[in-house]
Amino acid sequence: MKAIVSASAPFDVPFYDLDPMNIVWHGNYAKYFELGRVVLLTRIGYGYEAMKASGYAWPVIDMHVRYYRPLILAQKAEVVAGITEWENRLKIDYLINDLETGKKITRGHSIHVAVDIETEEMQWETPPILREKLSPWLVS
Amino acid sequence: MKAIVSASAPFDVPFYDLDPMNIVWHGNYAKYFELGRVVLLTRIGYGYEAMKASGYAWPVIDMHVRYYRPLILAQKAEVVAGITEWENRLKIDYLINDLETGKKITRGHSIHVAVDIETEEMQWETPPILREKLSPWLVS
Amino acid sequence: MKAIVSASAPFDVPFYDLDPMNIVWHGNYAKYFELGRVVLLTRIGYGYEAMKASGYAWPVIDMHVRYYRPLILAQKAEVVAGITEWENRLKIDYLINDLETGKKITRGHSIHVAVDIETEEMQWETPPILREKLSPWLVS
Amino acid sequence: MKAIVSASAPFDVPFYDLDPMNIVWHGNYAKYFELGRVVLLTRIGYGYEAMKASGYAWPVIDMHVRYYRPLILAQKAEVVAGITEWENRLKIDYLINDLETGKKITRGHSIHVAVDIETEEMQWETPPILREKLSPWLVS
Repeated sequence: MKAIVSASAPFDVPFYDLDPMNIVWHGNYAKYFELGRVVLLTRIGYGYEAMKASGYAWPVIDMHVRYYRPLILAQKAEVVAGITEWENRLKIDYLINDLETGKKITRGHSIHVAVDIETEEMQWETPPILREKLSPWLVS
Repeated sequence: MKAIVSASAPFDVPFYDLDPMNIVWHGNYAKYFELGRVVLLTRIGYGYEAMKASGYAWPVIDMHVRYYRPLILAQKAEVVAGITEWENRLKIDYLINDLETGKKITRGHSIHVAVDIETEEMQWETPPILREKLSPWLVS
Repeated sequence: MKAIVSASAPFDVPFYDLDPMNIVWHGNYAKYFELGRVVLLTRIGYGYEAMKASGYAWPVIDMHVRYYRPLILAQKAEVVAGITEWENRLKIDYLINDLETGKKITRGHSIHVAVDIETEEMQWETPPILREKLSPWLVS
Repeated sequence: MKAIVSASAPFDVPFYDLDPMNIVWHGNYAKYFELGRVVLLTRIGYGYEAMKASGYAWPVIDMHVRYYRPLILAQKAEVVAGITEWENRLKIDYLINDLETGKKITRGHSIHVAVDIETEEMQWETPPILREKLSPWLVS
């Protein structure tokens, strides 16, 4: 993943995420992506509370998931999340890997746009606060 | 169920609620209870929006579920919800039945207390608004 | 949606699908898509039980969701699911519309491949059973 | 908690478990209980795989949750799970505490009975395997 900045988080697959095929139900991967996204945004100092304080919410407008291999009970995996676009919208790429074999399980992305919390208006350009938060990782 | 007022809602068991034993994961029944509760509270004119307008939230402080039989994929069931206490707290009882055989699947309850949304204070007596909403069903 | 065959299902947005922004959490849309897919596959006589009986499972290998507008509490919506590819893989397109205004809420797709339940081998061509099930809707 | 054997697991509250009141939706606590139960059963060498190998499933027949305080976003909490009955049925008690203040958030229990996986018959006495697994913690 060619990301401006990335972060990863390990996780275990819980029983309640499994379906009758004994694999994680495909809809549950959005939770693992979010786990990685939270770690990533916390790393750049722009977690949920900081977002609210900045006056912007960042709803998801697009999500893609590509499933290569299933996840099974108690499998030890990690999610890697990285920012790959930020100028007009925020794009985060995700990889889920098996922690023991290193094999790729899932790949995906989410795209977010800034919405002014007060006016509820969508921002067509990324607000300066995100550039600021990203500045340590942007090549000058 | 000896309730002051009750209401019921049919539902189908969705695939994503199943676990690897091919039955509904026990934690998902809270969703079916809520389905019944919403229909019940709407019936007495005290649904989510009316609650907010009345200045009170009604968080769950106690929940009990007794599982008699499993629920399986696509099973047609109904949840019956009824108000069984309201004077100091709001108690709602639930029954989940198989719609075809009439057999009892699950029984349970939830207990709610009123919290003033502004002061965030718990109300030790049920606010008058609930009595008002219930008045058509209270024996004079 | 240009689909070979499609079906739709109405649904209400439940409280437990909402997030702190008072809108449906983005990860929950996979459940609404599944609701539509089940109605669609049942319509062509190839629901979950029929799939199992045919010896094939159809795991999701790709999912995409595009969010146009948020879904809010108790909003009445419908999901339309239609088969748009079937020869080498099964592609299902989805639309979620507001039932009152007709406005488009969400668009997406899922891609499925057949896996032989016994050998666990992925099928590179769609097994004949799907063509058979689709034959009433295929132009001769 | 007066338990024969107990175990605990820390957890963070994820965004997708919150409801519009900015607190964890009450139905999600079953997941935190399960988190503790898995750690507990793994500790006594009777996790999900060992259960299956022993020929028994242990479905939940009763669950109770008592909510003292809400859980909020990113709150650091722990769940403690302990076995409090095992002779005729398996009873597990749970406590959820705030990790920083030590304050009690939630209390509850789940009751499980053994079901023979092959015959699907409920066992009125706990099968010897559980006693065996518990023997290191049973006073002789």
